Amino acid sequence: MTTSDSSAPLPFRILDKGTLTSPRGFRVGAVCGDIKYGGGRKDVALIVSDVPAEVAATFTTNQVKAAPVRVCLRRMQRAGKMRGVIVNAGNANACTGLEGLENAKEMARFAAKAIGAEEREMLVCSTGRIGVQLPMDKVRKAITYAASILGTDGHTAAEAIMTTDTFPKELAVQFEADGATITIAGIAKGAGMIHPKMATMLSFITTDAAIDKATLRGCVSTAVDNTFNRISIDGDTSTNDTVIVLANGQAGNTPLATDHPQLETFQKALQYVMKKLARMIVEDGEGITKIVEVAVKGAKTMRDAKSATLCVARSLLVKTSWCGEDPNWGRLMDAIGYSDARIREELVDIYYDGICAVANGQPSKTPFEEIRKVAQKKSFTITIQLHLGEGEYSIVTTDLTEKYVELNKGE
Amino acid sequence: MTTSDSSAPLPFRILDKGTLTSPRGFRVGAVCGDIKYGGGRKDVALIVSDVPAEVAATFTTNQVKAAPVRVCLRRMQRAGKMRGVIVNAGNANACTGLEGLENAKEMARFAAKAIGAEEREMLVCSTGRIGVQLPMDKVRKAITYAASILGTDGHTAAEAIMTTDTFPKELAVQFEADGATITIAGIAKGAGMIHPKMATMLSFITTDAAIDKATLRGCVSTAVDNTFNRISIDGDTSTNDTVIVLANGQAGNTPLATDHPQLETFQKALQYVMKKLARMIVEDGEGITKIVEVAVKGAKTMRDAKSATLCVARSLLVKTSWCGEDPNWGRLMDAIGYSDARIREELVDIYYDGICAVANGQPSKTPFEEIRKVAQKKSFTITIQLHLGEGEYSIVTTDLTEKYVELNKGE
Repeated sequence: MTTSDSSAPLPFRILDKGTLTSPRGFRVGAVCGDIKYGGGRKDVALIVSDVPAEVAATFTTNQVKAAPVRVCLRRMQRAGKMRGVIVNAGNANACTGLEGLENAKEMARFAAKAIGAEEREMLVCSTGRIGVQLPMDKVRKAITYAASILGTDGHTAAEAIMTTDTFPKELAVQFEADGATITIAGIAKGAGMIHPKMATMLSFITTDAAIDKATLRGCVSTAVDNTFNRISIDGDTSTNDTVIVLANGQAGNTPLATDHPQLETFQKALQYVMKKLARMIVEDGEGITKIVEVAVKGAKTMRDAKSATLCVARSLLVKTSWCGEDPNWGRLMDAIGYSDARIREELVDIYYDGICAVANGQPSKTPFEEIRKVAQKKSFTITIQLHLGEGEYSIVTTDLTEKYVELNKGE
Repeated sequence: MTTSDSSAPLPFRILDKGTLTSPRGFRVGAVCGDIKYGGGRKDVALIVSDVPAEVAATFTTNQVKAAPVRVCLRRMQRAGKMRGVIVNAGNANACTGLEGLENAKEMARFAAKAIGAEEREMLVCSTGRIGVQLPMDKVRKAITYAASILGTDGHTAAEAIMTTDTFPKELAVQFEADGATITIAGIAKGAGMIHPKMATMLSFITTDAAIDKATLRGCVSTAVDNTFNRISIDGDTSTNDTVIVLANGQAGNTPLATDHPQLETFQKALQYVMKKLARMIVEDGEGITKIVEVAVKGAKTMRDAKSATLCVARSLLVKTSWCGEDPNWGRLMDAIGYSDARIREELVDIYYDGICAVANGQPSKTPFEEIRKVAQKKSFTITIQLHLGEGEYSIVTTDLTEKYVELNKGE
């Protein structure tokens, strides 16, 4: 994942005001369910495919999994086609025991019934505070209402899944295959608790591509690994993270499979959508002022590169120095030094937006002011070259600010 | 390490105004070397034993090791007796290449000569900013001056090693063995970058006990593991951390060895000194408002308990919630969930100062206000019972505050 787009032309186009309902055969109903926020804020969304769709999904790796995640995981094992997703914000339905599990099932059952689908064809997601039971009466009413207003205003779903997000996150791209037009659209929510292995992060992707299940799952797994799993704000991984991709085949293309000439375009387009959504999540990180791409190169192995990258992206001292616009590379050296990556101090080079700050483990001859200028930018790249092998990894992360602490002190 | 002392009487007494020179045969010279701070602030200290002393030491596990740490590590391999330590604050002499290594050796050489010792009998430490060469002219002058004023005002050494510390950290304890009086004294500095495996933390311990080298090293290793390695402020581990213990035998006791009846008292006294110093370091953590002991019990293994403890102590969301006096146990569940420890959500109990907040992975019946009252205390204990085995671990850590960010934004 790079902070700037490559200069090669994209093999797809970005839609103006693209949203979840841009692909054919998807409808959305988003309503104010008064789950927590009240005051006319949307917090329940029903996302529906008119016909059963192939589905691929990724869930949190946290051992403490919210009830809806458990329901989805079980439902995904059976691996049939799906009609949609019901999602609420304001309450995570996590650490809620058997009652929570029943409530998650009931949410899905109720939503399925409301659209005339089978119970097993509905997925369910929640995000918000942990340890509180869902107000099921309100949830049921909201679902009934959402089903009654299903329409093409996909933007409302992007709004309804927001918690501490400050702006809705959505986009759609389009390309041709077999004379058919394929559209891929996505929405996401993020803000706090963002870290590789996912976070309090939800993302829903719709596409009208015809694609077989195994191919879709391969594409999604690769794309998530290169996008949502490469962002970090505070190093915490939540109990509710979910990415769900629905592909309903309404574009009418020859089904995408490993030998299809346009599969690569589909993969690129899907990854582009996820990458942009991931970037929006970082940009909307709680109280952040800097977006920093940290790339470790020349590591002995990819695993070493990853370990060093994560230690840098997670170091409080590194992140606070970014907040102060201080190119304090000593803290970078320190962080890679305590990572599991093998390093040889006297071989390490460090660059800020390509400008050498450290050569052979010591200060370079670059004037300090030149490096400080990079650190004053809203967004920059730090490249750490270890000169020990071919292992590479990168991540997009943020600074740590007084505002972050303030925002997260109370609930 | 517990936050409150056990009620059993201590087998030693705590000295009033105890300091490094309380044990017989140690002298200290601390001076303003103008290494960085200027303005009459002491920043160079020479700690000397009148006779060669047995020595045990622990150093940072960071792969990026400051030059003085490298010099000490080499010197400790030869494992002869030592006459003392020369230490400066304000400059870490880390990431300074061959010149830095030569400077560290020169510091030790110069200090040894100034007190009439062999070069190999002197250890050397530095703490402060990374990546800047030491002003060796000033360092030499300061050493000459420090050697000329060697005396019994050990307190000045505790002052001289401070960087962002707000108070000097020192204490001494005493007990009898074989009709002789044994004294153990220590000083420390900490503040930022404090995490297990040590931190920008220096501690020097002097004792007049007669003790054989192997026994001393065993005692020190155990004590460090139970004290300095059980504190965490920001999760960063520095390039310079060092604990050095000098035992010069001037008390005249029968040398302590594994069969000596008073060895256990020595171990307890040594661990007490380190524990108190470690606690002072946490209390002086940059911008902190809370001190929290996190204990994980009932883990499948001690390794699991440690992993869960560290994930909690390192979670930004957990630490900011403490700052806000919010007993947000959902963030604790989340943090143990993404740790490497095996957990079963439905078995987890969580206590705040012994009051049950979570039972079987769900909110207990304790009124929220009761738990909030604990979270409002300056210092409290969180106990997480996993009910999976006998593994236990605990750590003393702090909250994360706006002030911490502010203090660490620039250097």
